[in-house]
Amino acid sequence: MNKYFEEALAMQPELVARRRDIHKHPETGFTEFRTASMIIKELQALGYEVSYGDDCVVESEMFGVPGQAVLENHMQRAIAEGADPELVAKMAGGKTGVMGVMHFAKPGKTVAFRYDMDCNDVVECSEEHHRPFAEGFASTHKGEMHACGHDGHVTIGLATAKLIAVHKDEMAGTVKIIFQPAEEGVRGARAMAMKGLVDDVDFMFGGHLGFKATLDNILICACGGLLATTKLDAHFTGVSAHAGAAPEEGKNALLAAAQAAVSLHSISRHGQGASRINVGVLNAGTGRNVLPNVADMKLETRGANTQINDFMSSEANRMLKAAADLYNVEVKITPAGSAPACVTEVDFGQEIAEIAKAAFEYDDVIDTMDFGGSEDCSYFMETVQLKGGHAAYMCYGTQIAAGHHNDHFDFNEEVLWKAAAMCATLAEVYTNK
Amino acid sequence: MNKYFEEALAMQPELVARRRDIHKHPETGFTEFRTASMIIKELQALGYEVSYGDDCVVESEMFGVPGQAVLENHMQRAIAEGADPELVAKMAGGKTGVMGVMHFAKPGKTVAFRYDMDCNDVVECSEEHHRPFAEGFASTHKGEMHACGHDGHVTIGLATAKLIAVHKDEMAGTVKIIFQPAEEGVRGARAMAMKGLVDDVDFMFGGHLGFKATLDNILICACGGLLATTKLDAHFTGVSAHAGAAPEEGKNALLAAAQAAVSLHSISRHGQGASRINVGVLNAGTGRNVLPNVADMKLETRGANTQINDFMSSEANRMLKAAADLYNVEVKITPAGSAPACVTEVDFGQEIAEIAKAAFEYDDVIDTMDFGGSEDCSYFMETVQLKGGHAAYMCYGTQIAAGHHNDHFDFNEEVLWKAAAMCATLAEVYTNK
Amino acid sequence: MNKYFEEALAMQPELVARRRDIHKHPETGFTEFRTASMIIKELQALGYEVSYGDDCVVESEMFGVPGQAVLENHMQRAIAEGADPELVAKMAGGKTGVMGVMHFAKPGKTVAFRYDMDCNDVVECSEEHHRPFAEGFASTHKGEMHACGHDGHVTIGLATAKLIAVHKDEMAGTVKIIFQPAEEGVRGARAMAMKGLVDDVDFMFGGHLGFKATLDNILICACGGLLATTKLDAHFTGVSAHAGAAPEEGKNALLAAAQAAVSLHSISRHGQGASRINVGVLNAGTGRNVLPNVADMKLETRGANTQINDFMSSEANRMLKAAADLYNVEVKITPAGSAPACVTEVDFGQEIAEIAKAAFEYDDVIDTMDFGGSEDCSYFMETVQLKGGHAAYMCYGTQIAAGHHNDHFDFNEEVLWKAAAMCATLAEVYTNK
Amino acid sequence: MNKYFEEALAMQPELVARRRDIHKHPETGFTEFRTASMIIKELQALGYEVSYGDDCVVESEMFGVPGQAVLENHMQRAIAEGADPELVAKMAGGKTGVMGVMHFAKPGKTVAFRYDMDCNDVVECSEEHHRPFAEGFASTHKGEMHACGHDGHVTIGLATAKLIAVHKDEMAGTVKIIFQPAEEGVRGARAMAMKGLVDDVDFMFGGHLGFKATLDNILICACGGLLATTKLDAHFTGVSAHAGAAPEEGKNALLAAAQAAVSLHSISRHGQGASRINVGVLNAGTGRNVLPNVADMKLETRGANTQINDFMSSEANRMLKAAADLYNVEVKITPAGSAPACVTEVDFGQEIAEIAKAAFEYDDVIDTMDFGGSEDCSYFMETVQLKGGHAAYMCYGTQIAAGHHNDHFDFNEEVLWKAAAMCATLAEVYTNK
Repeated sequence: MNKYFEEALAMQPELVARRRDIHKHPETGFTEFRTASMIIKELQALGYEVSYGDDCVVESEMFGVPGQAVLENHMQRAIAEGADPELVAKMAGGKTGVMGVMHFAKPGKTVAFRYDMDCNDVVECSEEHHRPFAEGFASTHKGEMHACGHDGHVTIGLATAKLIAVHKDEMAGTVKIIFQPAEEGVRGARAMAMKGLVDDVDFMFGGHLGFKATLDNILICACGGLLATTKLDAHFTGVSAHAGAAPEEGKNALLAAAQAAVSLHSISRHGQGASRINVGVLNAGTGRNVLPNVADMKLETRGANTQINDFMSSEANRMLKAAADLYNVEVKITPAGSAPACVTEVDFGQEIAEIAKAAFEYDDVIDTMDFGGSEDCSYFMETVQLKGGHAAYMCYGTQIAAGHHNDHFDFNEEVLWKAAAMCATLAEVYTNK
Repeated sequence: MNKYFEEALAMQPELVARRRDIHKHPETGFTEFRTASMIIKELQALGYEVSYGDDCVVESEMFGVPGQAVLENHMQRAIAEGADPELVAKMAGGKTGVMGVMHFAKPGKTVAFRYDMDCNDVVECSEEHHRPFAEGFASTHKGEMHACGHDGHVTIGLATAKLIAVHKDEMAGTVKIIFQPAEEGVRGARAMAMKGLVDDVDFMFGGHLGFKATLDNILICACGGLLATTKLDAHFTGVSAHAGAAPEEGKNALLAAAQAAVSLHSISRHGQGASRINVGVLNAGTGRNVLPNVADMKLETRGANTQINDFMSSEANRMLKAAADLYNVEVKITPAGSAPACVTEVDFGQEIAEIAKAAFEYDDVIDTMDFGGSEDCSYFMETVQLKGGHAAYMCYGTQIAAGHHNDHFDFNEEVLWKAAAMCATLAEVYTNK
Repeated sequence: MNKYFEEALAMQPELVARRRDIHKHPETGFTEFRTASMIIKELQALGYEVSYGDDCVVESEMFGVPGQAVLENHMQRAIAEGADPELVAKMAGGKTGVMGVMHFAKPGKTVAFRYDMDCNDVVECSEEHHRPFAEGFASTHKGEMHACGHDGHVTIGLATAKLIAVHKDEMAGTVKIIFQPAEEGVRGARAMAMKGLVDDVDFMFGGHLGFKATLDNILICACGGLLATTKLDAHFTGVSAHAGAAPEEGKNALLAAAQAAVSLHSISRHGQGASRINVGVLNAGTGRNVLPNVADMKLETRGANTQINDFMSSEANRMLKAAADLYNVEVKITPAGSAPACVTEVDFGQEIAEIAKAAFEYDDVIDTMDFGGSEDCSYFMETVQLKGGHAAYMCYGTQIAAGHHNDHFDFNEEVLWKAAAMCATLAEVYTNK
Repeated sequence: MNKYFEEALAMQPELVARRRDIHKHPETGFTEFRTASMIIKELQALGYEVSYGDDCVVESEMFGVPGQAVLENHMQRAIAEGADPELVAKMAGGKTGVMGVMHFAKPGKTVAFRYDMDCNDVVECSEEHHRPFAEGFASTHKGEMHACGHDGHVTIGLATAKLIAVHKDEMAGTVKIIFQPAEEGVRGARAMAMKGLVDDVDFMFGGHLGFKATLDNILICACGGLLATTKLDAHFTGVSAHAGAAPEEGKNALLAAAQAAVSLHSISRHGQGASRINVGVLNAGTGRNVLPNVADMKLETRGANTQINDFMSSEANRMLKAAADLYNVEVKITPAGSAPACVTEVDFGQEIAEIAKAAFEYDDVIDTMDFGGSEDCSYFMETVQLKGGHAAYMCYGTQIAAGHHNDHFDFNEEVLWKAAAMCATLAEVYTNK
């Protein structure tokens, strides 16, 4: 157990308290006003240069920002629950991303860490066997819940920041600690990456607790197979008509959407690798005896690499339009999220594994493992990799009480100190590379 | 203007008051507890033998009865708004149909009238130019509104009952006045007709204000072309799966339902006459990145005659099951309403027209006109016609402020006294046939 | 039995001989070179002014003319089988329509008759119980057969021409006798009607033997319900690809066509009357393991009136294009035939029935009957009706050995003399109106 | 260049002659009577024990055997072109597989080679620039052509047999040389493998000229990624009807098949690896105005492994049945071919590469390469591998004049002697292992 692990273990009571405070006050994507406000204050207190609001995001690249009323409502709530009104004001419009930067005396490399802050649209379980409920730190925001562990991620991020600040003399170059909104739906990373936050980064680390690492005291160093993905909303508009008297006067949005759903799933497989299509939600029509004039669809495509996903999303776009033409209705297609694939760096994973084994006695340290999902951390990773840097997406081992996004989700908080210590270890190693 | 028209005109202030009271307290299908309670008391006061609750309905034939909680909630509301608790208790389970019967001294024929009582699932307009709102009689039940004129129908029915009672010496045989719940969705008539209420009826009259007669002071005597119809609900159940990691583990209920929707519309045209199919509502899926495991569909078929509609609904049933098989999901199909077609009796329409012209100076009296929709009054009519009796569905002329089922719907209340007088006239003529 | 019937009966042996000669030498649409050549010579011999070739047809309006090689092949065959080479040359390009005109001394009305000449693509039955085979007059052109009775129609037309010529002193005004190619597929009438042949006609008669009149010695005077129809060919062109190695490189014409087929059948029913859609033939793909790059479809729409058929064919055209877009392939849509609906004139049918009953002792004379199919005679009829004239489509009663278009088709030749006599009777009555 | 290469080079004139003789007399799957007859005689002459006819095949496992008339026709043709009538008689029913076995004095391993004999359904190019045509050895069987190089494979197989026989003193154990019919459509291997022919084999070699190795003088030692595949024929039978008069009386086989085609392509992607579906051919309907009562479909599924292909073919079977149910028609599904996937043995490929480099100066020797298609040689390979033996599928490098299955296909005949020498080299090495 190296010094970071020892010190992080000593911080554990405060980490648990912070995680539980965040868990109790979850905030969905682009409304993380309270969470971000707290992060800003903490990073400033630790001596970081902190940027946020317009300085952290290209507004036009944010996907699926809630409406003005929702944003204002959540800003008020955040202030009522302790957020700094001035900071909140600067994050108006959902610009809740935060970055803390610290330059060190010794010249060295630039190393970045990324943590996500948003919660899920889930009503938290209120049964006695659910620890957050039993121990009084369940969500106080009905319909919002940290069911994916991002409360833990924020906690780990701030603990990492603290360990690095404390050990600033052992660090070199620059460390950047990024807190991203709206990872759910892969909506928030693109707008931060395009602001150029990681353009100068040499080593980039993202990560998740649990997921592929659902045993305590293990570590996966470099997850592969983050699928590229595109999320789309399609809104079909036709003309309603009396289904008995004059159906020929209608333009049937339900049939257009239904046809689109079936056809979308018939997009050709791709000879170069895995592809995916899912029409996850379809709501259409207003009444049984009315020829339906509206339909709404939520869909996503994925691909083993960005090219395959581009093939899928391009096919999907054309098909949605053609299906609308088929029934003479209009369709409006709105991008609702996206993430590129990213290359798994096997060598980098092995290198991290060596560092991990030297730093702490894990039960198991796995170089690389297939992730099998999508995560918009890949926007940061791809940016760094394309400029010649290295990037890895880690999984911090922890038992979980139920699957991610489940209303019974909870995790073993022991992961908090270990993950923070591992991140700080990597900061020291890689800034000094 | 015959005596019934003269007397009905004199009753107009009380008719307007009654219509507005009902309009203010609308009740959806099978929850007409307050309305029915009021009707029972009024019919009893007029000297009718009144049956209701279990005496008026075959429970197993009621379509789409709301759940127990909704029923109880509405029963409580009805009582709170003046309904007789004892009567309401007897109508538990949604058995809100009522029939008043009066036997007369002279032997004669049995004549029945049918009026419907339920309102629509519509949020009433709250703008100044909407008269019910402006004059203070808009719905006090949010989401419920008499947007189809059944408030008028109940008023006409009770006024008819009064005129007949007053003129009982001129009547012969028997008069039956039926108040039916749940016409919307054609859910209520079948259960009353199957109770045998009109098995002994010689002449049967149904009707609607407005609809095909949207000018004041006109009358359509025998609407033709009531399409036979079947209403179905289909609930598809599959298995959800992670759309990225393991889509092959899912069973896609959304695709099954979407496919069903398209295929249903491809049911063959029928060489013997008009057919219709409409999938009016489709809701499926739970989230963009989850392979969808549920889908709900509301649909209806129609046919120019019962045989054609049977062809359509039989095809629809098979297709729903096959579409479920296509994607290996389950489907539960629930009947949600039905009405047979009924034969237009041209001669009977002409006879009624002669009576109407002799009774009142209408601007126009039309023998027969195509209705182009469905109405479960046809259950009563068919029963009477199959036993050798005669049946007609009239349209009482009135201007309307907006189309039926629109939240701006309103009508010229002058139709009330005229329609009641016409019904009473028919009662005298046909009981004495 | 009036004089026309008496004389026609006497002609029966020559009628039977002519019919059998035509039956033995059937010619498909636009290749009726031998048949038309014989008709021209006969009409000229009877004293008619005869027009044909370019004088009878607007070339650009002919649907589905066979290719040059087929035409030339059939021209040679016709000459080899006795056709006049000069006449055949003038009919090059498939311009095989013929019209004979005779003006009479007395001023009077213009009356037109139309007969169709083409045979079917059917291999005639060669079994002993099939009379044409047994008696040696079966088709000598393999794959071509008069299986719809047009051999009888030509025979009736020429007999009508002869009866009229013989009785020219009893006639008035003008008689036009039209022989039309390519009725099968409704391909030939439009091009003749647009040439203006019947623009001056007051009374127009078309007809068919058998069909709705499959008893000997009956007559239907005015068939109603000729559905308007449009025939379309659709050719989809995509890009083939190895279905295993690189399916994403293909553009799937089979899927586009399959999708089009299903969607076409989902075109909305029409509230104003009967509509039809049929995708009758679909051939797609080249091999099991090749992503299919071609698909050919034959389809037709119909409607109770021209407006409804226009709705259907317009929807079909849009859907074919959209289905092509759905799978990113090209589609070429070619009109392959059409016919308008035509109005049944009930009064005219009754008038003809009176004439028929006075002329001959039919077992049954029916004023009007629903035809339930399509016939491009309606182009001529519509032209006449739109200018204020009257038109009727008759069915001449005869037993048939098998359904129309069946390879066992045959009819009782007694219908020949009766139909010709009836036409001549109508010529006398209506030219003298 | 080892001795096998030297001797094979000397044999080249006779190899070219044999290849061209076979090319001139191509025979499609299960009709290789002339080819097999020649092989049997040659193997016997070389001293092999030869089995064929019933001794080489489980009759019930043959896929897509032509009808009796075709078989007899081709048997007669083979005899007319020089085949031994007695041998042909023993291959009746399409049992054209042949195996030659030679046991050697030294104890050793059992090594098997497999070559395929059938040609394609292709009309060979008859243009001067096509060498087979220019040099007079183009196919004399119209519509049959060796467009996949199996003429070369047979030639290589017999040359291999000769080299081994000549060097029988250097060999050990046993060599089996298998000539398989009907590789096209993956129809022939299963029936031979199930007869147990390779149950005792330790090392198994299949191969193809060209394909992934389209440069002269290269060798690929062990192709990977032979996809598991299932070929299915589906025949839909409905009821025809007049599309205008009574479409409701029909049962639409075209719509069932069209729907099936679209739905089949919507079978879920598989999370465990590549899957494929292709509906390659669809022919449906009889005429434009007839509701179509028949449809025929040829399709195939593939999978990266046998389990994935099983998922695909199981889904396909269910969907075909459900699509038939959707339109109330019958469907008959007939297996038309299949092949399992097989494991690429990377170590074995490397070992072969070492042997190849030692034996001959290839421009390039590639250990393993992804094949990206299907080949039923995998039935033999899988059998050997499952019993603990080793199997490799090689590609013998040669330039080709056009893609495989193209009517311009031809190859550089230099590949013949090199491939045979390589096989003989492997025989010596592996029988002595």
